[in-house]
Amino acid sequence: MKFIHTADWHLGKLVHGVYMTDDQREVLQQFVKLVEEEKPDAIVIAGDLYDRSVPPTDAVRLLDETLFKLNIDLKTPIVAISGNHDSAERLSFGSSWYQHSQFYLNGNIEASFRPVHINGVNFYLVPYAEPGTVRQLLGDDSIHSHQDAMKSLIGKMEETINPNEPNVLVGHAFVLGGQTSDSERTLSVGGSGCVTADLFAPFSYTALGHLHSPDAIKHDTVRYAGSLLKYSFSEAKQKKSVSIIEMNDNGSFDIREHSLAPKQDMREVEGYLEELLDPSFAEGQNHLDYLKITLLDDGSLIDPMGKLRQLYPNVLHLDRKIEQTDLKRKIAFQAVKEEKKSELDLFEQFYKEMTEAEFTEDKKSAMADIIQSVLKEEGLK
Amino acid sequence: MKFIHTADWHLGKLVHGVYMTDDQREVLQQFVKLVEEEKPDAIVIAGDLYDRSVPPTDAVRLLDETLFKLNIDLKTPIVAISGNHDSAERLSFGSSWYQHSQFYLNGNIEASFRPVHINGVNFYLVPYAEPGTVRQLLGDDSIHSHQDAMKSLIGKMEETINPNEPNVLVGHAFVLGGQTSDSERTLSVGGSGCVTADLFAPFSYTALGHLHSPDAIKHDTVRYAGSLLKYSFSEAKQKKSVSIIEMNDNGSFDIREHSLAPKQDMREVEGYLEELLDPSFAEGQNHLDYLKITLLDDGSLIDPMGKLRQLYPNVLHLDRKIEQTDLKRKIAFQAVKEEKKSELDLFEQFYKEMTEAEFTEDKKSAMADIIQSVLKEEGLK
Repeated sequence: MKFIHTADWHLGKLVHGVYMTDDQREVLQQFVKLVEEEKPDAIVIAGDLYDRSVPPTDAVRLLDETLFKLNIDLKTPIVAISGNHDSAERLSFGSSWYQHSQFYLNGNIEASFRPVHINGVNFYLVPYAEPGTVRQLLGDDSIHSHQDAMKSLIGKMEETINPNEPNVLVGHAFVLGGQTSDSERTLSVGGSGCVTADLFAPFSYTALGHLHSPDAIKHDTVRYAGSLLKYSFSEAKQKKSVSIIEMNDNGSFDIREHSLAPKQDMREVEGYLEELLDPSFAEGQNHLDYLKITLLDDGSLIDPMGKLRQLYPNVLHLDRKIEQTDLKRKIAFQAVKEEKKSELDLFEQFYKEMTEAEFTEDKKSAMADIIQSVLKEEGLK
Repeated sequence: MKFIHTADWHLGKLVHGVYMTDDQREVLQQFVKLVEEEKPDAIVIAGDLYDRSVPPTDAVRLLDETLFKLNIDLKTPIVAISGNHDSAERLSFGSSWYQHSQFYLNGNIEASFRPVHINGVNFYLVPYAEPGTVRQLLGDDSIHSHQDAMKSLIGKMEETINPNEPNVLVGHAFVLGGQTSDSERTLSVGGSGCVTADLFAPFSYTALGHLHSPDAIKHDTVRYAGSLLKYSFSEAKQKKSVSIIEMNDNGSFDIREHSLAPKQDMREVEGYLEELLDPSFAEGQNHLDYLKITLLDDGSLIDPMGKLRQLYPNVLHLDRKIEQTDLKRKIAFQAVKEEKKSELDLFEQFYKEMTEAEFTEDKKSAMADIIQSVLKEEGLK
């Protein structure tokens, strides 16, 4: 039995004010092509299909079209859950109709106890839910954390699970120790929001969504698919992919990763302005990529963003190394204000920070004379 | 061929700050029961299923459940369009899947040229669209009004229509001369937004939505179903219903109206506070109805809303006849300020407005004395 595990499409996502919908459309076309070639028995989408509970209508249309191609045109069964970015109710409107063509979209935690059977594999679909929702559903007042909630849900599944068949849990959760990025929304304010990987022991494979790197955790049977695209510069070095799982009747499986890459990559670039504006430098790379540029130049620059965007229209963020030095200066200045220092001490500190050169005894003596005469003139000494 | 024509459910509607969802659920249960009994060949819903493009999740769930009962449990074909309150894109997500069970939900104006055939009748589903959308779709720059748009759309339908079969247009529009109420949103700012009934001549029956009264227009073949519930006090005297149409092969039809009534009616009540608070008066009516109460009392009343709500918890609006007199007073006072009048004249005017009694010569003379002595004391005369 072969299925493809994907998650965190985040359709309708804005990155630094730019809608990713065109890039998402392109990568989803690659995904549809992959499904055409691989002919899997099922597609698993582990939550966060949309980036927000009320996504832009473009994103609504894109999801509709993509799922229709996969499920109806390519006749591929789909199992999917709502994630913490989706509105479970809005996303699952109409889901009762979809089941006719083996498209199982679950936003209802109660339905997670009734697995979906596809080609010998039982899929337990656990949508993202707040601990309070699970507490109420199970009538168990001891449930306070995501860990408690997942433990209780899986405990209830174990009452009816058949351990001799391959069982797959599809969930949207933050597994303890998982590597985060800047584009995930924290699951719990105050608490950790984490669950431990050992909870998923009853399952042959756990297909997770939430963390955006496919390598977010190292585990044999509990895995993140990673997001469809890079959604923050903290993910610039990640390679995005979907996982193709071929599962045997005993639940053992082989896994392959298939890369997805949009025309426009998201990259971080560091260099001097002049160097970056050199056409020979620009030629060596896709100038349409989404860039975060860090300039190494000292001193003031005239409209660097304007100049850079002429060559690289999709610069989303511009940083300057010098600004970090500026920050240090600011902090030092603050510290100075809080102490009571002599004029000479203050100047020494200022000189060191501005020039990063040594404040020699000669310089010190010369400066002391100047300060002395100024204070005298001003009648302060 | 029998179909039921309904429209303007406006699920998620707020009336004077109160969600109508429970009332809507109850009336929809009556509707489901009617469908069970009548066993129509189709249900026609002529737009505004929701009250807004992003309805509350309760309303989303209610629509999902209701349509599922009608279409899947009762196996009744449904044709429906989006209205001006719906978001066509959001509402029609997943509609491709619904067609399998003969649920045709159209938010796409382009699809209106391809009729849906059910039991010998051709349904042309015309979702609400701005004239600009139709102009762009048909590439016809002469389209500026709703009238132009509807004329062009129907013109295009006529190219392929079979006049020997019964044809039904399902639309969401404001027909010229139609009687409006306070709960419809104007279709056009500046323009009239109207279409003329003669446009629909090619159709055996035109099932409309938008105006909330079933009697909004008098026409043999062009009809409004009216809204599911009373959604404003301007509809208090309307009787809400759905229409049951039995159509012959030649397009002629018989029509029956079936009333829908929630447990809580929406009514206007006028009377004196004491009278309304009399238990014997209250007993004669459903004290849970949504009420607009107009009090006839003169003079000040202490917390009339608080007192009334003890007996009638769902008073949504309280008016006082006296307030209209207040308004007159205010206008008169303004006029006084603008003239230069003697103190006695001013008092006379004030007395008349406050008491609505005559300012006799005796009173005048007594008041003149008082004014005289006050002015003297103050050294003003």
